[in-house]
Amino acid sequence: MKLATLRTGEKSTTAALAVGTDSYLPLPYSNVGTLLADSGWREAVKAAVAAPTGAVTASADRLAPLLPTAGKVICCGLNYGDHILEMGRDLPEYPTLFAKYADTLTGPTDTIDVYGSERVDWEAELAVVVGSRLSQADEGQAAAAIAGYTVANDVSMRDWQNRTLQWFQGKAFDATTPVGPVMLTSDDAGSSFDVKGYVNGELVQSGNTATLVFGPAQLLSYISQFTVLRPGDLVLTGTPGGVGMGMKPPRFLRDGDVLTTEIAGIGSLQNIVRIHQSGGTESRTPASATSTKE
Amino acid sequence: MKLATLRTGEKSTTAALAVGTDSYLPLPYSNVGTLLADSGWREAVKAAVAAPTGAVTASADRLAPLLPTAGKVICCGLNYGDHILEMGRDLPEYPTLFAKYADTLTGPTDTIDVYGSERVDWEAELAVVVGSRLSQADEGQAAAAIAGYTVANDVSMRDWQNRTLQWFQGKAFDATTPVGPVMLTSDDAGSSFDVKGYVNGELVQSGNTATLVFGPAQLLSYISQFTVLRPGDLVLTGTPGGVGMGMKPPRFLRDGDVLTTEIAGIGSLQNIVRIHQSGGTESRTPASATSTKE
Repeated sequence: MKLATLRTGEKSTTAALAVGTDSYLPLPYSNVGTLLADSGWREAVKAAVAAPTGAVTASADRLAPLLPTAGKVICCGLNYGDHILEMGRDLPEYPTLFAKYADTLTGPTDTIDVYGSERVDWEAELAVVVGSRLSQADEGQAAAAIAGYTVANDVSMRDWQNRTLQWFQGKAFDATTPVGPVMLTSDDAGSSFDVKGYVNGELVQSGNTATLVFGPAQLLSYISQFTVLRPGDLVLTGTPGGVGMGMKPPRFLRDGDVLTTEIAGIGSLQNIVRIHQSGGTESRTPASATSTKE
Repeated sequence: MKLATLRTGEKSTTAALAVGTDSYLPLPYSNVGTLLADSGWREAVKAAVAAPTGAVTASADRLAPLLPTAGKVICCGLNYGDHILEMGRDLPEYPTLFAKYADTLTGPTDTIDVYGSERVDWEAELAVVVGSRLSQADEGQAAAAIAGYTVANDVSMRDWQNRTLQWFQGKAFDATTPVGPVMLTSDDAGSSFDVKGYVNGELVQSGNTATLVFGPAQLLSYISQFTVLRPGDLVLTGTPGGVGMGMKPPRFLRDGDVLTTEIAGIGSLQNIVRIHQSGGTESRTPASATSTKE
């Protein structure tokens, strides 16, 4: 099955079951994360199907980020083996991990507004949704704890990312990582996925997760050795070759570019990218939002 | 004034006002973060003082991590100018930032249990508590949004930290960053702090925040350019010289060592460090916590 998070108001959302093209059955949970936090969520979905209570149609622009309140969003870099080998590098012994926050996420068709970066790049990725609590888990436990898979684009501000040795500041701009449109539950998923990225319709990235150095269960197991993972947490598995920074000359997104991120069998993200000057007094900083103390 | 978060049960806490040595007046908020999220928190504190409703005595072991549900815990590395210069390096143009999660925090007198690392190191730090929402703020706005200051130790697993280029995995072990014992409100704080770290009573770190390359307001302003900061978020300002990794030969914490982190005028953390083998089937992974799917 496929699950989504739909917007129902300016700040309200609902979990929903995809029941056809642009059709969703609302579920009595605020989003997919709170749904997964209920260990009886499969039964709750069945009950909702048996006795539907709400509308079943929604346009794409109502799709919210799949996990708007994810407690942890942990990303793996340098994880596609074929790309690493073609670059003449050795395969890594350990996954390269970095963190972002739920604020970084945005919806599957939302406009991505970037303030203050001139080197905005794309990173199409498979993302893994955690379905149950994991602490110091082995790979078998981790595999069993995967609720499903979704699509993400780890949009990266390369100028900020490369200001220092730590990537965080270039990876954690608010509302710049689209995720969705749905989570494909693990019981309906195959063992690997084709991951593709397009800019204005031009294919720029293409890989298959069969070539991941650290697969989904390995990543979850590894992370759980040092920090607990909970239902609704998200792990991004890394991006295949073809990012703009690696092109000669480097290529970055321009104002108005359309970024499409596609995983066959799950769905696709389509986001317009808007590049703004930083420090704008425009929409992001109403005077009331940064008033004097308290 | 000084504010603390006290444990009231296995999983429950309360915000409290320090009213003397080991004496606290409970406040009607679950912790200092939820207190600060109420823009009328100063009036609420006054009201509680005028009509106290609960006990006012608490032993040190009741102190919880100051901000147990912090949405963001953002850390700055390489930030003490005198130490950078004495190492012969240039002062950085931008702050080196990395993220951790609230799960990483622990209480000011809690035992720090580390699983699976043999290179556990200390980093005594001043931490800044955000008091109001900040987005693309200038330094003046950021300064006005500082609720107060507290003490932290960014305990670091150097073996994990150095496995890859990204520090996150060595910095985000659950319950390894003590924070507290109290937040000194900014209106009672001076312009700089002496930061000291001790191992088994031996002074190993000593610095003054006057030598920070990026001061508290600069850090908050910089971070707010890419991600919103909210009341109860925590920013760690970096550590002075004297960490174990920099000693010749390197020195790391041993099982049973006592780590003391002290900032005059705020208070001190005192934590026993326990080093465990990884993958233990002992306390951290009850079978029920990693059961089969859902």
